[in-house]
Amino acid sequence: MPMFHLIAFDADDTLWDNESLYVRIQDEFRQLLSSYLDPEPVQQVLDEIEQRNLHYFGYGIKSFALSMIETAIELTDGRIRGTDIRTIIGFAKRMKETPVQLLDHAADTIALLARSYELMLITKGDLLDQEAKIAGSGLADSFKYVEIVSEKDKQTYETLLARYAIIPEHFLMVGNSLRSDVLPVVAMGAQAVYIPHHTTWVHEIVQDHDEEDGSYFRLDHIGMLPALVEELTSDRLASK
Amino acid sequence: MPMFHLIAFDADDTLWDNESLYVRIQDEFRQLLSSYLDPEPVQQVLDEIEQRNLHYFGYGIKSFALSMIETAIELTDGRIRGTDIRTIIGFAKRMKETPVQLLDHAADTIALLARSYELMLITKGDLLDQEAKIAGSGLADSFKYVEIVSEKDKQTYETLLARYAIIPEHFLMVGNSLRSDVLPVVAMGAQAVYIPHHTTWVHEIVQDHDEEDGSYFRLDHIGMLPALVEELTSDRLASK
Repeated sequence: MPMFHLIAFDADDTLWDNESLYVRIQDEFRQLLSSYLDPEPVQQVLDEIEQRNLHYFGYGIKSFALSMIETAIELTDGRIRGTDIRTIIGFAKRMKETPVQLLDHAADTIALLARSYELMLITKGDLLDQEAKIAGSGLADSFKYVEIVSEKDKQTYETLLARYAIIPEHFLMVGNSLRSDVLPVVAMGAQAVYIPHHTTWVHEIVQDHDEEDGSYFRLDHIGMLPALVEELTSDRLASK
Repeated sequence: MPMFHLIAFDADDTLWDNESLYVRIQDEFRQLLSSYLDPEPVQQVLDEIEQRNLHYFGYGIKSFALSMIETAIELTDGRIRGTDIRTIIGFAKRMKETPVQLLDHAADTIALLARSYELMLITKGDLLDQEAKIAGSGLADSFKYVEIVSEKDKQTYETLLARYAIIPEHFLMVGNSLRSDVLPVVAMGAQAVYIPHHTTWVHEIVQDHDEEDGSYFRLDHIGMLPALVEELTSDRLASK
């Protein structure tokens, strides 16, 4: 009898590549603006405007596109040409069409764990973006539940566990964001596995946090997860 | 014992005003473009671009804003000023901040039916927009379930009913869109109540449909719903 009744996964940058696409588009965006101005401060202004716009527009490609447009207008004092703004909207359409690129080991790990556990996908962001990526990932059939939420905080996880009648002791969350996937889960009394990704959006970075505080597990890549789950299950059984 | 185990409601223009806000902003958008061109064809081009962009951007305020920007660029051959595009982004922020305006009778009807039935909200569109409106409506506590989906077709309804283990005979859907709330529900073998709203987005209008085909109920306003539900329940009991 496994100790976990439900293993949940973050999606973007846990199962498939996401942030690096944003990074590539930001490079193109800076390039686009370089005919108007020194591109050096572009990234900082874009980060600030994205942060400011979260309240209005949330996460995802459309929000990113609107923030790029606003950044372009602000930095060029309104001189940005309509045709260049059309190019920015084209960036967003291209992002939406970009095929899902699974991370190494993700497909095998999910297939293996799905044999013994009920799996849930808990992803934050734009409904349409996320649905399209789940459909395109080839992993949809392995997940018994899919939850797309607008924010991943302690309240969100508590609501989800209540809905599925799971107690925190039986819940394990796996993801690449300390802020969204790990700390709120640990705070609720459940267990979490942190798998850092090489690229993390500035908004998701937690400052002043001791990564070695021992309240969660940390793995180098998702291929190491089945062994950890097995170990945790054996330990629990041995202690009974 | 009521015959319906679950009564589900559409949200926008069924419980609260939505489309009229889009109509007001479209008026301001045409006004904004009137310094560049004859505003007469603006609406048609905007409708076409919105339709074309559904695939990329889905429903909601951000999608609408991106389509307005694209329309402005197209109709002005790129001459639209950056400051005017900033105004369009401002439209979107203002829309997001507009308080929810419940339709007449909606609050009383929901409160009354919630005493005897489990109620579900099934709404299509942008996750963040819809969550904010549900929170701002004051009705959230009356709904046992809230489902925000990207499209409302027969498949969507079948998936939802399966998830909650409800058979179509026990399901009633109420909404203002024949296309999204009524016809797919009837096609599944459940019952539907059509409550037309004075303003309906062109995308939701069903052509070549006989509104009097008798496969669903039609009410003038939501305040008439409790009486219809009671009548249907009595008929069902009497026929047993």
